[in-house]
Amino acid sequence: MNSRSFKTIEWRDNALYLIDQRALPESERYIECTDLSSVIEAIKLMVVRGAPAIGITAAYGVVLSVKHHHRQDQNTWYRMVQPDLDRLAQARPTAVNLAWAVTKMRDGLKGLRSVSNPVAESLQLANQMLAQDIEDNRTMGKLACDVMVQSNSNVFSVLTHCNAGALATGGYGTALGAIRSAWQRGLIDRVYADETRPWLQGARLTAWELQKSGIPVTLNVDGASAWLMTEKNIAWVIVGADRITANGDVANKIGTYSLAIVARYHQVKVMVVAPSSTVDMALPNGQAIDIEMRSEQELTHLGEKLIAPDKITAINPVFDVTPAQLIDVIVTEKGVVKKPCAESMRLLFC
Amino acid sequence: MNSRSFKTIEWRDNALYLIDQRALPESERYIECTDLSSVIEAIKLMVVRGAPAIGITAAYGVVLSVKHHHRQDQNTWYRMVQPDLDRLAQARPTAVNLAWAVTKMRDGLKGLRSVSNPVAESLQLANQMLAQDIEDNRTMGKLACDVMVQSNSNVFSVLTHCNAGALATGGYGTALGAIRSAWQRGLIDRVYADETRPWLQGARLTAWELQKSGIPVTLNVDGASAWLMTEKNIAWVIVGADRITANGDVANKIGTYSLAIVARYHQVKVMVVAPSSTVDMALPNGQAIDIEMRSEQELTHLGEKLIAPDKITAINPVFDVTPAQLIDVIVTEKGVVKKPCAESMRLLFC
Repeated sequence: MNSRSFKTIEWRDNALYLIDQRALPESERYIECTDLSSVIEAIKLMVVRGAPAIGITAAYGVVLSVKHHHRQDQNTWYRMVQPDLDRLAQARPTAVNLAWAVTKMRDGLKGLRSVSNPVAESLQLANQMLAQDIEDNRTMGKLACDVMVQSNSNVFSVLTHCNAGALATGGYGTALGAIRSAWQRGLIDRVYADETRPWLQGARLTAWELQKSGIPVTLNVDGASAWLMTEKNIAWVIVGADRITANGDVANKIGTYSLAIVARYHQVKVMVVAPSSTVDMALPNGQAIDIEMRSEQELTHLGEKLIAPDKITAINPVFDVTPAQLIDVIVTEKGVVKKPCAESMRLLFC
Repeated sequence: MNSRSFKTIEWRDNALYLIDQRALPESERYIECTDLSSVIEAIKLMVVRGAPAIGITAAYGVVLSVKHHHRQDQNTWYRMVQPDLDRLAQARPTAVNLAWAVTKMRDGLKGLRSVSNPVAESLQLANQMLAQDIEDNRTMGKLACDVMVQSNSNVFSVLTHCNAGALATGGYGTALGAIRSAWQRGLIDRVYADETRPWLQGARLTAWELQKSGIPVTLNVDGASAWLMTEKNIAWVIVGADRITANGDVANKIGTYSLAIVARYHQVKVMVVAPSSTVDMALPNGQAIDIEMRSEQELTHLGEKLIAPDKITAINPVFDVTPAQLIDVIVTEKGVVKKPCAESMRLLFC
């Protein structure tokens, strides 16, 4: 089985289908979205998650909005779509790809104001975004491998956090794309996957994806990272990103920052793999990033089951910011930034 | 409610009663042990856990063994008890308190070979061990507060990992004992509790204990430690220990080592609170500690529910070793070791 044996995001029969990531790995079921509200709901409830996947989903959400308003009134649709774009952009705050995708669609729609079939044309924009994402992931996979080949002469293992795979993107994956490429080139022998509390993206999604792809994977608790680095042959921590600021700071799943500190302590290198749409040159550094706080229930319950005392206080920041100085390399489809800082970031992204 | 509103370990009506820590916080139920095998089973299955609590439980297990063999034959009981002691000492490998308690009981039994009622006398030894543990915990609480008072002039928060509370000891607690004392003295305003995967001792036990004691507690995922240290006023990480070696290396719950690295990065101090029975001067350093590997199922399942793909490989080391250089202070009932190393450890423990 390859990574495309499931479809994270698919447009079919005039509707958007999303694999329900809340139900994995237990069941592989798909949610149908036929209007904008259902798309926003799917993003908020994490039916779909992962910065690039959220962006692409939003692009199809715009298509559904255009479809609705164009059917209502062919003259006013363009104006009516605008508030929908704003609502969509605000569905989740931390990842910048959502805002990026909405802006890209907003710009694209400007050219469609007087076309006869803006639905078909906006759909083409969304389809292009999806296709481009997959192509970019493959480019990043190649660039990431080149970095690893330069850095390591023997076969090694890698550790990843959360899920930055086919499920987090249009397909293939960013961090897991790099890992797929490295596996195909014989560079790595095993992937250690942090289970990634509280949502267990590592246990539920990364382990599932890698198992489907036949890549050897071992699941571990998030707290085992330091132990693993002393006991196993881990040369790289490879993760995705939700937002990268102008100085190279990286917002990613909660636990990434701890992991990067632990990696540095063990002289294990840290690679961030993300499309350039994740780079937000408008923000000077990570302190300016809005960190999403989600429900305490994600910690206190597993499904319906209470796993903590009733009425306990919990804190659930779902992202953290890893400072650039803890990151060895950022890989994007536009190229690679080693030792990221304001200067090196500017060279590639301005 | 105070910490003694439940009994972690209690001898009553010729039997040992253990609060079933697997069932907390959902239900507060007690397991009755009337023979040695049930005590060993309770230790292996983690009905009782926490290094000091395991040691005390083992002491009562010895009483049950003496009771059994003395009833069988008043002349041979002493000889028959010996293999039971060996079996008991091997129930779990990492914490040294278990071996310490068995050795202490073994030594105590030598003086009881010709007494008329060795059951009552061995029971007295176990009762003494329990009473001494609680007294020692209160001493450690005081010593820990003295260290904090010297180090911090303003009110601060602390972060703890796993459960080193009344549930992990005869009562009061080691790390949580220090925290109780600090709370009573007005030194701290809040405790952040790592949920502590995979067994969730933090979510299920620490949060429950602190909530019962009226100490403000906030639950967080293990991966949030670095984020918390940047966002909250955390001055100390306070943890227990399962074994401390001659150079001051500390074996404790998986995740402690990562946490100590993260603390050092943020200039947050690390305090280990443990009775001197946890100190194993026979081991030169942490590399010599046997790290217990437990079932993969602790990661892949929550209760009966599968939370990872079927047949996935998982690795479940349940302890790790924090090197002495990452620890600011070790607090025992015998005194305090600042900047632990072979030299400073020898001064207190030889």
